[in-house]
Amino acid sequence: MEWIDGGVTAATGFYASGVYAGIKKSRKDMAMVFSVVPATVAGAFTTNMVKAAPVRWDISLIEEMKMAQAVVLNSGVANACTGTKGKQNNACMAKAAAEALDISEKLVLTASTGVIGKQLPMDAIASGVKVLAGCLSDTMEAGTLAAESIMTTDTVKKEAAVTILLGGKKVTVGGMSKGSGMIHPNMATMLAVITTDAAISQELLNEAVHEVVSKTFNRISVDRDTSTNDSYMVLANGLAGNEQITKKDASYDEFLKALYAVSESLAKKMAADGEGATKLLEVNVIHAVSEKEAEILAKSVITSNLVKTAVFGNDANWGRILCALGYSGVQFDPEKVDLVITSSYGTLSLVSNGMATDYSEEEATKILSADAVTVTADMKSGEESATAWGCDLTYDYVKINADYRS
Amino acid sequence: MEWIDGGVTAATGFYASGVYAGIKKSRKDMAMVFSVVPATVAGAFTTNMVKAAPVRWDISLIEEMKMAQAVVLNSGVANACTGTKGKQNNACMAKAAAEALDISEKLVLTASTGVIGKQLPMDAIASGVKVLAGCLSDTMEAGTLAAESIMTTDTVKKEAAVTILLGGKKVTVGGMSKGSGMIHPNMATMLAVITTDAAISQELLNEAVHEVVSKTFNRISVDRDTSTNDSYMVLANGLAGNEQITKKDASYDEFLKALYAVSESLAKKMAADGEGATKLLEVNVIHAVSEKEAEILAKSVITSNLVKTAVFGNDANWGRILCALGYSGVQFDPEKVDLVITSSYGTLSLVSNGMATDYSEEEATKILSADAVTVTADMKSGEESATAWGCDLTYDYVKINADYRS
Repeated sequence: MEWIDGGVTAATGFYASGVYAGIKKSRKDMAMVFSVVPATVAGAFTTNMVKAAPVRWDISLIEEMKMAQAVVLNSGVANACTGTKGKQNNACMAKAAAEALDISEKLVLTASTGVIGKQLPMDAIASGVKVLAGCLSDTMEAGTLAAESIMTTDTVKKEAAVTILLGGKKVTVGGMSKGSGMIHPNMATMLAVITTDAAISQELLNEAVHEVVSKTFNRISVDRDTSTNDSYMVLANGLAGNEQITKKDASYDEFLKALYAVSESLAKKMAADGEGATKLLEVNVIHAVSEKEAEILAKSVITSNLVKTAVFGNDANWGRILCALGYSGVQFDPEKVDLVITSSYGTLSLVSNGMATDYSEEEATKILSADAVTVTADMKSGEESATAWGCDLTYDYVKINADYRS
Repeated sequence: MEWIDGGVTAATGFYASGVYAGIKKSRKDMAMVFSVVPATVAGAFTTNMVKAAPVRWDISLIEEMKMAQAVVLNSGVANACTGTKGKQNNACMAKAAAEALDISEKLVLTASTGVIGKQLPMDAIASGVKVLAGCLSDTMEAGTLAAESIMTTDTVKKEAAVTILLGGKKVTVGGMSKGSGMIHPNMATMLAVITTDAAISQELLNEAVHEVVSKTFNRISVDRDTSTNDSYMVLANGLAGNEQITKKDASYDEFLKALYAVSESLAKKMAADGEGATKLLEVNVIHAVSEKEAEILAKSVITSNLVKTAVFGNDANWGRILCALGYSGVQFDPEKVDLVITSSYGTLSLVSNGMATDYSEEEATKILSADAVTVTADMKSGEESATAWGCDLTYDYVKINADYRS
């Protein structure tokens, strides 16, 4: 597997575009991803009872068609809690894209992100879709424009791509995502579109999607708030020419690894770019009884406001980490737990068998001051492990969210 | 039922004291509550797997003795994650109190709050206990001194007391509590000691404790972090002279109401004094299918960082409220939900049947700018309701917790 530059246009036969359509005040706000041939599709979507109109559209379309050829996305307005009119507007957006691309509207997926409760400005959407269709391109720059156009409070665009060899054929998996606040995905994240030229059956693509999402996008949290619009979609158009993957063989494993790598990379970028965040917090729980328990423990630590503020303050307040493990709901012996912190500045053992080691606070503070910090909790009670990703909780998180709409 | 001034010394036969013993830098840090006769006792304690030494001591003592005569409390050091030495220190603290009071150490409950992972300074504790025993008093001022001595990041002391008549006898229920951060009790809150001169069997007192805690202290949250030290203890010494409550009759109901009133008052004071908070947030969920579901929905809203920051910014960002209801895990129809906000500045309907009403943002901002704000979510799907209390998330929460230990 080789990392390459690029995102949704990295794989053969995928085009993209991103424009300013007039939904937001000034930043780019619409994007399109297009495959020259209909692609096998699978997705994972929010588990929130309150599902945005585009989420309902995509779930039903993927269920019915199992194929898609385009995704049209907008930022600025989430089209959630918008009732019947919101559903109609979403269908209109898909239809307008279908007309502009001369394909069936049943091959057009939609995604929206932004303020909840506002209706889409349909004039802007209608003209935006035409411009998007007109400037589709398969260049890396076009993919980047699309990635930029779906940003809301994100401070950086998020792209990732890898290539693998399947039976001698070069297969590419690339993708883009957005998300910075209301990030605590449960089945998927805010918005992510992954494209690949791999040939793979829909059944196996669907399996791969759910396996990968459960270990990547579902293991990040910025603020414990599961959004109404979470959508993760993978389009596989088969243009790489590999023999179609139809069973769980070595090719499937290799494809899964590539999809995992791109998804983990995008998920970590989202956690690191959490609203107001100054650093990425990675929590590894090792030697747990089961992977599920390891995941619950790791997520409990990354979602603790007290851990997150301590990490912001570069304060090795390990009691809060043990406390968060303790209220996770998982049974364990606190007097067996070891805690170690690691960053580019070094590694330090803070806790051994549930009690503080004789560590240097100064050294701990230095390690915690890096851009990315890893906490490893060794439960010493089994063989399973899991990693979760979050970020620190800062003044800027409060600032961004105390007046998001103004 | 009549509200009266006072706290733990309001009921007949209860003495208290609070002193500076040298555990913290300068603020008062030790307190004692004493009943002139052994009292029936019941309690509720943290469900965190990581339980502080005093919590383990109290659980085992209440189980064994069902009676207690004194509670010795300290702030500054939580005596959690302190291993065998922590257990020994806690036993020494109880023993020192027992000697100073000339009672059995098996009648002395303990409670600690403060930094996790540090050992108690036993010299300070030993001399502190002697001073505490020497200056016990049944005045209101002594109760207040005790309430002040258990504060950590609290900005105000928390006391409440009521009187009721049981069979012609005046019965008093009073109490104190502390807690401002790491507040998301699960069975009880940080520290609360309730005293009453009611005569009641231990079995019924225990039932009353669990019924009341589930609807008061377990329905507040400051930061979703369930502490290692949560303790709620009720001592009933019987000196009011009422006929002992031994069954669920009218006297029990009246006593339950009094215990509920004092506990709700203390719990709301804790939520309002949440770290960095500028206001109390009350969430009423009405017409839910069951009380349990109403509670889950209400708690999901009060714990949402996005709701909390919006409330801080006086921003009627109702989409976040619907979103938090939506990811609570409870099944409901989003298109039936109504949302109303209320404060001393008025009442305003924000959402009707899942969509925005034509409300004035200006009026909404004014209502949200009060010291206490209530959100009512009408699920229109049943007859049950529940209330939960929280607070806003502010810059000061981050400030307090980014360098709590420094």
